[in-house]
Amino acid sequence: MPYLDNRNSIIEVLRSHPEDATRLWVEAGHERPVSAIIEEARKAGVSIRVIPKEQFARRFPAVKSHACLEREGFRYGDPDALLATIPSMPLPFMSAFDGIYDPQNLGNVIRTAACFSIDALVIPRDNACGVTEAVTNVARGGAEHVAICRVTNLARYIEELKKRNVFCFGLDEKAGKDIFDMDLTMPLCLVLGGEEGLRRLTKERCDMLLKIPASADFPSLNVANAFAIAAYEAVRQRTGKRGRSG
Amino acid sequence: MPYLDNRNSIIEVLRSHPEDATRLWVEAGHERPVSAIIEEARKAGVSIRVIPKEQFARRFPAVKSHACLEREGFRYGDPDALLATIPSMPLPFMSAFDGIYDPQNLGNVIRTAACFSIDALVIPRDNACGVTEAVTNVARGGAEHVAICRVTNLARYIEELKKRNVFCFGLDEKAGKDIFDMDLTMPLCLVLGGEEGLRRLTKERCDMLLKIPASADFPSLNVANAFAIAAYEAVRQRTGKRGRSG
Repeated sequence: MPYLDNRNSIIEVLRSHPEDATRLWVEAGHERPVSAIIEEARKAGVSIRVIPKEQFARRFPAVKSHACLEREGFRYGDPDALLATIPSMPLPFMSAFDGIYDPQNLGNVIRTAACFSIDALVIPRDNACGVTEAVTNVARGGAEHVAICRVTNLARYIEELKKRNVFCFGLDEKAGKDIFDMDLTMPLCLVLGGEEGLRRLTKERCDMLLKIPASADFPSLNVANAFAIAAYEAVRQRTGKRGRSG
Repeated sequence: MPYLDNRNSIIEVLRSHPEDATRLWVEAGHERPVSAIIEEARKAGVSIRVIPKEQFARRFPAVKSHACLEREGFRYGDPDALLATIPSMPLPFMSAFDGIYDPQNLGNVIRTAACFSIDALVIPRDNACGVTEAVTNVARGGAEHVAICRVTNLARYIEELKKRNVFCFGLDEKAGKDIFDMDLTMPLCLVLGGEEGLRRLTKERCDMLLKIPASADFPSLNVANAFAIAAYEAVRQRTGKRGRSG
């Protein structure tokens, strides 16, 4: 049974997708500290069950807080529907990942994507981390704000994006061009690797490769941090305020 | 006994601070996959001990790889020496944190700081995560590239930085000014909170508060990602290439 235990994640689901919530479980004697969550569940019409401490511990052995939201599994977006929507988007802004394995990294990517109002994230169906409870808990509710689509063949999906005039730029520490020297104000998909960088096949599909300026001695950034920087740079350019322009 | 098991971290210590390494432990029968590490230890003059599988598992129960570097505890930089060095630095670039608790976050901060050649990180001595093995493993060798100083009173240390003409800018999601609208090309210390944002006392010490542009619905970034973005923005401005200047 999938469930959420992070306070922010629970509140986000209750507010944005109460239809996904099956039941709120509360540990008896701890109603007071989780009263805000209980209140949200009431407003959302989600049923609440208060159970004794021992029963709560048996049912949710990994949970350290006193409330748990039982829910349906994560609802992925439909990648074909996403392609169909592109022509009607004002200025598409997506990101595709070539296989993140670490739930911490994927959760942080989703949180950042939500923060920067990114239209969609595209991740591979196989050989990669999916949107598990661990991931949605790290995302602190962000997963309710971004469409996340899984595809079986990422390289082919990038081709489909390009056919729809979305520019696909890969992030690669060996690229020749700095990211801030590239115009990111067009329909855009940022393409990143997993923990080990972009795969050759994915790289070849990109319109261009860009790099984040880094120390020659130690050029390696964590994938979630690299994504945060690249997404910020696109947002910075798109706000029309392009920083101190020298 | 502190030890490292991440391959990159081990190689970085052997290359940059072999004097900190006590001994390299290798699991017998797995010398081949860790031959690069063994080679580095040889070059660095660090003693190598190959021990049977069972003994290795007993000694390092948490280690999944086949080699382990035993070392002295992490060597912090001296905060007073850092203050004394400031006048001779070409363009100081530091960052101070108001109490990160999660080793994953601190490790990622250190990795990013190394990548952007930041002069020093300042962290509180109490009520915060220190540079543990978990942290240096997440930093992937980055901890060997940045001076990390611990201070007992961060607010007072910020005052000392300001006396030495270092501008201390706090990151705060409620700030009125966007980070890209601020000149970051002066002597600089970026001040960030821990997982829960900046504390009031620290905030009051900052010369100014800046924000990263974010969705009004979901403005919350992970602290390591916020740091990566702020550090990148400073690097972007300092390279003299200030991006597409509209």
